[in-house]
Amino acid sequence: MLNIKRYSTSQPDFQARLTDLLAFEGAQDESIDNVVAGILHDVKARGDAAVLEYTKRFDQLDAASATELELSQPRLKQALDNLPAAQREALQQAAERVRVYHEKQLMQSWNYTEADGTMLGQQVTALDRVGLYVPGGKAAYPSSVLMNAIPAKVAGVKELIMVVPTPGGLVNELVLAAAAVCGVDRVFTIGGAQAVGALAYGTQTVPQVDKIVGPGNAYVAAAKRRVFGVVGIDMVAGPSEILVICDGKTDPDWIAMDLFSQAEHDELAQSILLATDAAFIDAVQASIEKLLPQMPRQEIIRTALESRGALIQVKDLDEAAEIANYISPEHLELSIEDPVTMAKKIKHAGAIFMGRQTCEALGDYCAGPNHVLPTSRTARFSSPLGVYDFQKRSSLIMVSEAGAQVLGKISMVLAEGEGLQAHARSAGYRLR
Amino acid sequence: MLNIKRYSTSQPDFQARLTDLLAFEGAQDESIDNVVAGILHDVKARGDAAVLEYTKRFDQLDAASATELELSQPRLKQALDNLPAAQREALQQAAERVRVYHEKQLMQSWNYTEADGTMLGQQVTALDRVGLYVPGGKAAYPSSVLMNAIPAKVAGVKELIMVVPTPGGLVNELVLAAAAVCGVDRVFTIGGAQAVGALAYGTQTVPQVDKIVGPGNAYVAAAKRRVFGVVGIDMVAGPSEILVICDGKTDPDWIAMDLFSQAEHDELAQSILLATDAAFIDAVQASIEKLLPQMPRQEIIRTALESRGALIQVKDLDEAAEIANYISPEHLELSIEDPVTMAKKIKHAGAIFMGRQTCEALGDYCAGPNHVLPTSRTARFSSPLGVYDFQKRSSLIMVSEAGAQVLGKISMVLAEGEGLQAHARSAGYRLR
Repeated sequence: MLNIKRYSTSQPDFQARLTDLLAFEGAQDESIDNVVAGILHDVKARGDAAVLEYTKRFDQLDAASATELELSQPRLKQALDNLPAAQREALQQAAERVRVYHEKQLMQSWNYTEADGTMLGQQVTALDRVGLYVPGGKAAYPSSVLMNAIPAKVAGVKELIMVVPTPGGLVNELVLAAAAVCGVDRVFTIGGAQAVGALAYGTQTVPQVDKIVGPGNAYVAAAKRRVFGVVGIDMVAGPSEILVICDGKTDPDWIAMDLFSQAEHDELAQSILLATDAAFIDAVQASIEKLLPQMPRQEIIRTALESRGALIQVKDLDEAAEIANYISPEHLELSIEDPVTMAKKIKHAGAIFMGRQTCEALGDYCAGPNHVLPTSRTARFSSPLGVYDFQKRSSLIMVSEAGAQVLGKISMVLAEGEGLQAHARSAGYRLR
Repeated sequence: MLNIKRYSTSQPDFQARLTDLLAFEGAQDESIDNVVAGILHDVKARGDAAVLEYTKRFDQLDAASATELELSQPRLKQALDNLPAAQREALQQAAERVRVYHEKQLMQSWNYTEADGTMLGQQVTALDRVGLYVPGGKAAYPSSVLMNAIPAKVAGVKELIMVVPTPGGLVNELVLAAAAVCGVDRVFTIGGAQAVGALAYGTQTVPQVDKIVGPGNAYVAAAKRRVFGVVGIDMVAGPSEILVICDGKTDPDWIAMDLFSQAEHDELAQSILLATDAAFIDAVQASIEKLLPQMPRQEIIRTALESRGALIQVKDLDEAAEIANYISPEHLELSIEDPVTMAKKIKHAGAIFMGRQTCEALGDYCAGPNHVLPTSRTARFSSPLGVYDFQKRSSLIMVSEAGAQVLGKISMVLAEGEGLQAHARSAGYRLR
């Protein structure tokens, strides 16, 4: 018997229960942070030598020189060529669909000229060099390589450097194959805070990058937080979440499996169902009981559902939309008749999966949009990873002589109001 | 005699000198961080009561209740009405120009439908509520209110909450007037880490926001870093910088004053000139000597120029562009004949001021583009503050029944490759 929370919005303390359910304190372990600070400092000071030592110590990989830690392009190609045909084709088809979607995100430069000849605009450029962290071991997902690498390549990043630890020399062939599909430029078999440090500061062998993206464990997350400012970083993600809204007319087995597909990621993952109909919630719960024993990752799913999952009865779909906006979920599945109308009411969500056909798994792999999404209610203020994360803008200002007369006068008044006389005089020089 | 560094790219150790010149260790003072952690914890736990206590202690402002710390809309309007007409009009003209430019940055939602009926897209929404930090005292700039508030309003943010400390009850009328011009919704006279905490967690009186923007001292910066994740934040800015590139044909007084206009901000500000002609650099240095005694803020300017400024002779303008891309300056002034061609070679800069007429001061106040720009080489990976910082995206995925057949198969292969069987089965259910 699975012990999953059952709530109803009609309970007087529902909001407090919901707040408790969503509460998650991001692990900012001080001892981890201290270890990471030491490693970063060492890698910054000693470069390759430090990276080699930490790689030997933490990954049991004893390389004589840092160049031995680089995988060649033929090695990546070999990984791709050796895949079973079905996997190779699935990887290539997914990559192609992700590329097509992300190409729509490309920002373009623009400018306009005012009547007096003053030109204003915005020049868009790509980052020069990006580092992509890929975890080793159980959380090594080739789909993550696609989702991080393709937007960077579409943006026009010239050099994409991947780091992936290979503990004890164990290489994930699917990950290397994904790197080959995406055109990753260089791959180093290093990981942990030492890999983040190598990318942030550069070593004799590993080039310094401008931004580091990709998931990692607590050490990697702490290292990324620390090097932020020296380089850009993507979001530091919390546990993955799905919110399913159902009108009671989807097969309960489908809904149960959609909740499982989130819960199987790890014990902290969160799966929540909102439905209008108590009998349907009973049916979903019965499906969960029936299907759980069939799942290879049933222990993870059970822990996640019991500790962080919930089945919640709502008054109607409008109330469901309100709750969704409060939760601001990473993944929102609208398993309802008219998802187009409902989606317009959603203000905060990482990705919206619309209609009964659109389970999250399709979006995780190959629909096209990115699967790197804001977690832990951060969709209130942030967006999926995209091409825009690998482009940046420079303002363009070219003031004509006529324009300088108008702007110079305004600037002088305001600069004097702020007590900045050099500003005022610099503007004043441009007055005829 | 001003002791400013004179370098030439022909010096064999030029790159090392340049690296030294740019080196700046951001102040992450541990004692400040500990104080801030305590204040944030207290404000989160005790809300208004804690805010009142800290405001009394740090700002000598003894309010009986938190509602006394709010300024009314008529009070803001009064500040605007009471300004001298020239200041009021300058503020309004600047605001209007900034608004027109920023409206061009508005992102729109988009979607497309594939041949089999699958719809993919991106839904753009505004943040619900934003907090704007405005410093009290000497660094309180009404232009900063415009530059932070207008993009948020253009984005469609529904509620904009400003906090501004008024130490000892001292109110900056220009700042309040700027808030009135921008349509700031609510203003609280609180500051420091306690104001950041109030905005991040909400109190009985101060509403919780989704993002906090605006400049502040080391305590405010430390507080913003700490609440990041609970709310969004803008960049934590370093000292301001200008890089001027000149072909030797601009009046040396103009160049000297443009360098001053950056240096007068504070002692850590950085002003660098790149020019092709040693005699012209001599002339600029002579202008500096001549003009400096005339400046009210000459002590700040002198310290900034002597400690962090430099006059650098380059071989030609192409070399200047290369150095500019390395420096990735916050402000780049191209005081040359053909700035349009040159701007195309610039990959990394916050804002590019093109042509001899376009001094930075015009852009600081009223040209239109934002004056909140990436500092300390972060223009390699980040952008000016803009409307896009107050909008976010949700991915839209609506898979048709036909689409689910294709995507389901790809997803199943990849999910099985990653060992995620619930993902595979969830996709598999959608196959006919």
